[in-house]
Amino acid sequence: MFAEAEADPTLSKDEFKALETRLRVGLLNAQYERLRQADKTLLVVVAGIDGAGKGATINLLNEWMDPRHIRTLAYGPREGDELDRPPLWRYWRDLPPKGSTGIVFGSWYTPLVIEAVRKKPNADAIEAHAAAIMRFETMLASEGVQIVKLWFHLSAKAQKERAQRLLASPETAWQVSPVDMKVNKRFDRIRSGAHVVLNHTDCGHAPWVVIPSADENMRTARTAEAVLTALRRRGVPRLPPAFVAHSSTTRIVDRLGKLDYDAKVEKEDYESELGLLQGRLALAARSDKFKDRSLIVVFEGQDAAGKGGAIRRVTHALDARQFDITPVSAPSSEELARPYLWRFWRRIPRHGRIAIFDRSWYGRVLVERVEKLIPPAKWRRAYAEINDFEEQLAASGALVLKFWLAVTPDEQLARFREREKSPFKNFKITPDDWRNRDKWPEYSAAANEMMMRTDVPHAPWHLVSANDKRYARLQVLRHIVEAMENQL
Amino acid sequence: MFAEAEADPTLSKDEFKALETRLRVGLLNAQYERLRQADKTLLVVVAGIDGAGKGATINLLNEWMDPRHIRTLAYGPREGDELDRPPLWRYWRDLPPKGSTGIVFGSWYTPLVIEAVRKKPNADAIEAHAAAIMRFETMLASEGVQIVKLWFHLSAKAQKERAQRLLASPETAWQVSPVDMKVNKRFDRIRSGAHVVLNHTDCGHAPWVVIPSADENMRTARTAEAVLTALRRRGVPRLPPAFVAHSSTTRIVDRLGKLDYDAKVEKEDYESELGLLQGRLALAARSDKFKDRSLIVVFEGQDAAGKGGAIRRVTHALDARQFDITPVSAPSSEELARPYLWRFWRRIPRHGRIAIFDRSWYGRVLVERVEKLIPPAKWRRAYAEINDFEEQLAASGALVLKFWLAVTPDEQLARFREREKSPFKNFKITPDDWRNRDKWPEYSAAANEMMMRTDVPHAPWHLVSANDKRYARLQVLRHIVEAMENQL
Repeated sequence: MFAEAEADPTLSKDEFKALETRLRVGLLNAQYERLRQADKTLLVVVAGIDGAGKGATINLLNEWMDPRHIRTLAYGPREGDELDRPPLWRYWRDLPPKGSTGIVFGSWYTPLVIEAVRKKPNADAIEAHAAAIMRFETMLASEGVQIVKLWFHLSAKAQKERAQRLLASPETAWQVSPVDMKVNKRFDRIRSGAHVVLNHTDCGHAPWVVIPSADENMRTARTAEAVLTALRRRGVPRLPPAFVAHSSTTRIVDRLGKLDYDAKVEKEDYESELGLLQGRLALAARSDKFKDRSLIVVFEGQDAAGKGGAIRRVTHALDARQFDITPVSAPSSEELARPYLWRFWRRIPRHGRIAIFDRSWYGRVLVERVEKLIPPAKWRRAYAEINDFEEQLAASGALVLKFWLAVTPDEQLARFREREKSPFKNFKITPDDWRNRDKWPEYSAAANEMMMRTDVPHAPWHLVSANDKRYARLQVLRHIVEAMENQL
Repeated sequence: MFAEAEADPTLSKDEFKALETRLRVGLLNAQYERLRQADKTLLVVVAGIDGAGKGATINLLNEWMDPRHIRTLAYGPREGDELDRPPLWRYWRDLPPKGSTGIVFGSWYTPLVIEAVRKKPNADAIEAHAAAIMRFETMLASEGVQIVKLWFHLSAKAQKERAQRLLASPETAWQVSPVDMKVNKRFDRIRSGAHVVLNHTDCGHAPWVVIPSADENMRTARTAEAVLTALRRRGVPRLPPAFVAHSSTTRIVDRLGKLDYDAKVEKEDYESELGLLQGRLALAARSDKFKDRSLIVVFEGQDAAGKGGAIRRVTHALDARQFDITPVSAPSSEELARPYLWRFWRRIPRHGRIAIFDRSWYGRVLVERVEKLIPPAKWRRAYAEINDFEEQLAASGALVLKFWLAVTPDEQLARFREREKSPFKNFKITPDDWRNRDKWPEYSAAANEMMMRTDVPHAPWHLVSANDKRYARLQVLRHIVEAMENQL
C-alpha cells in the first residue's frame, strides 16, 4: 500500500512542466463543469504523515483552481460549543454547497488515526470508529457529497532528511514543527496504524489515494491528479448494500388506528394541571443538571392537530434565552444544496438549551415519501440515517423526544372548516392541506411505518391523541417533564 | 412618559374581543405584505420592568402572526465565542432576512439599562452607550432593518401585586423569578433609569413605545398595536443628518498617483527575505499573546495586481486551522437580504485566528460606487459606517490591516494579455476586467478617496507598489509581521 510512496519517487522539473498545463487546465475545466451542474460537493480529506507537506495542498488547490469556489475546513481538537454537540456536528455545520470543493484538515479521521497509532490499539474502538466513519461517508455519498481522501506519505529516511534540510537554514527552519520531529521515532508504528486506517475505510464511493510526498513536484502532480480524477468522476456511486436501505419485512403495526381518540380533560382540571406541569418544566429547565444536557423536541402530526398550541404551552414555561423554535417548511436553495439532514444539524442546541422542531427531519419519510418528491430508495434508507443521527444526538447528551399529535379525519375536517371561517385563522389553511387530507391513508401508513422504525429508547415516539386539545397539551407536557425529571 | 402605564389601565374582556379580530387580521395581512415586498426586516426589541410580562410577547406574536416568518432572538450575558468579538457581533450574526420579523430579548440595550439604573450612573458611559446604539440603529435603518422598541411598564403597586398573586398558588408561583422580587425595592431607581434610556435613544426611525402591562388584555392589545403600526409603516425613514453622510470637503490626495511603481526586489534577495519574514509570521501567529488577539487582513487593488499570490505567501506561513480566506464577489440572495456589512460580520475571526479578505466591505465605496449599483448617499455614508465597524473590531482585540496593491495601467495590460494567453490563467480574465479597465480614472479616484477617509491608526491602509510581484509580497508580509510584533 505504501511501497510506491516509500520508494520516494521524484519528478524532474521538465517532467513536471509537461504535466502542469494539462493538470491545471483539466482542474479548472472540471471545476467549472461541477459548478454548472451544481449537483455534487467534493470534499478532499487531507491526512498522512506529519512533515510530508500536507499543508501545501491548500495553496496548490487555491492557486490551480478558482479559489472563489474552494473552502478550507481545518479543525483542531473539539472546543467550546463543539463539545456540546456530537463529534460530527462541526463537519456537518461547515459543509460547502453543491458545485463547490472543500479541503478538510483535521477531519473525522483524527480519532481513528490516534487510536490506530497507539502502542496498543484497541481493536473494538477501531471497529467502532471505522463503522461510524463509514456510516457518515455513505450518508454523504448518497446525498451528493463526494469524498476523496489523500494520504501523504514518504519513507522514514526522506521524512528525516526533509526536516534536517529545512532546519539547516533560518529561512526554512520554522516550517518544521515539534510534531514533525517526533514522527521519525515512531515511524513504524505510524505506518502500521495508517495501514489499519486505510484498510478499514477505503471504499468505492470514498477512496483513499496515497500521495508520494518526498519530492515536491511528485507530490504536487499526484495531488492534482487525484483531485482531477475525483472531479471528473460522474454518475451515482455504488453504495455498500448494508448501509443503503431498511430491509426489514416486519408487519407494520397500525398505532394510529389503535389510539383512543376519545380521551379528554375538563377545563378546570386542565388549568390547574397545566400550571403544575409548567412549573415542573420550568424547574427542570433551570436545574443545574440540565446545564450538561440539552433537549430536542420534535412535533409531527396531521394538519390542524394542534402542534402550534402545544408548543406555546411548552415555551410558556421557559426563558426566552433558553429555547429556539424551528418551523420546518420547504427547504431553501441553500438547504437544497446540501444533504437533507444539514438544516437540522445546524439547529442542534448546545447544552443547557432546548430546540423545538415544528415538523422535522421526519418529513423525509412522510411528505417526501407520500408526495413522491424522492425515489423510494431515499426514504427507505432514511430510517437508518435518522436513527444514526438521533443516536449521535443522544450520545452527546441530548434528550430527544418525538410527538405525533393524532386527530381523526372528522375532527380535522371540523377544524379546517373553523379555520376557513375565522378571519385570522384562514391563513393556516391552504389548498395543500385539502390535498394532504385526500391522502389520509397514505400519510397514516407512512406515519405508522415511521413510528415502528424509529421508536427507539434514546429517542422515543409519543403518539398523542389530540382530538381534545387540552388532553394533548397535558400529555405533551407530562412526557417532557417526566423525561427531564428521570434523566436529570 | 410612564404616566399612562403607571395608571395601570385595563381592558375588559368585551373590549378586548372587539379589538382582537381587527388586530389579528391586521397583523397577518401586514406580515404577508412585508413578505411579498421583502424589502425590510422588522426587529421588535423587548425591554422593560421585570415581572411585567415581557416574555408573553413571544407566544403572542407566534400565535397571532404566521410563526414561520418570526424568529426569537434572545441573549444572556456574552459568553464563549461571543467574548472574542465586538459586543454587537451576535446581533449582526443573527439578523433575520428581509421580509421577516425578529423578536429581540436581551438586546443591545442591556449594558445601557444596567448603567442607567445604577445607584450612581456614569453620565459619560451613558452617552457613549447611547451613541453606539444610535449609530447601530441608524445603520440598520438605512439598510432596510426597521426597529420598534417596546418598554413594558406598570406601577410599583401593580408589579408587587402581580408577584404576590402568582406566588399564592403552586400553579403559578414558578412564573415569578427572583429578579422580579427585587424590582419592587428599587422601583424608583429603575424608573428614572428607564427615563434616561428612552430619552437618549428614542428617534423617528427606531421609536420607543411604552406598553401598559398591569392588565393582560391591555398589554396584549397594545403590543399587537405597536407591532402592527410598525409593520404598516411604509417609506424610507428620515435619518438624523449627523449619522448620514460624510460631509468633509477636504481635497483628496492622489496617493495612487504619487506611488513609486519602479520599486523591485531581485530574485535571490526575495527568496531569502521571504523565508525569514514567513518564519517571523509563523512565530508571531503561534505566540501565546496572539491567543487574545485576532488578525484581519484586507486585500484590495486593481484587477491582476497580484492579490492571490500575496495571500498565498501569507498563508504558507500559517497553520491551516488558524486562518480563513474569504473571497468576495457579488453577494448571494441570502446576503442581499441583509445590510451589506452582514456578510463580513459573519466572518469575523475569534481570538487566536486570522481572517483574510480577498476584496472586502470596501467594495461598497469602490465597485458599487463606480458602477452606480447604489445611490451616492449610500456610499458617502459608508465611510463612516466602515470606520465604525473597524473601530469595533479593533476594540475587541483584532489587528486590522488593509492593503491596496497598486499596478500601473501598462503593467495591468501586460498581465491581462499574459493571462489571456495562458491556458490555465485565462479563467481569471473576463469581459468585466476589461470594462473595469476602461474606468481606470474613476476607480483610482474612488480608491484615493477611500484611503483618505478610512486610513485610521487602528486599521491602517498600506498602499503597496505591485508592478513587481516580489516587492509587493515582501511589503505585505513585512507590514503584517511588524504590526504583529509591535502589538503582541
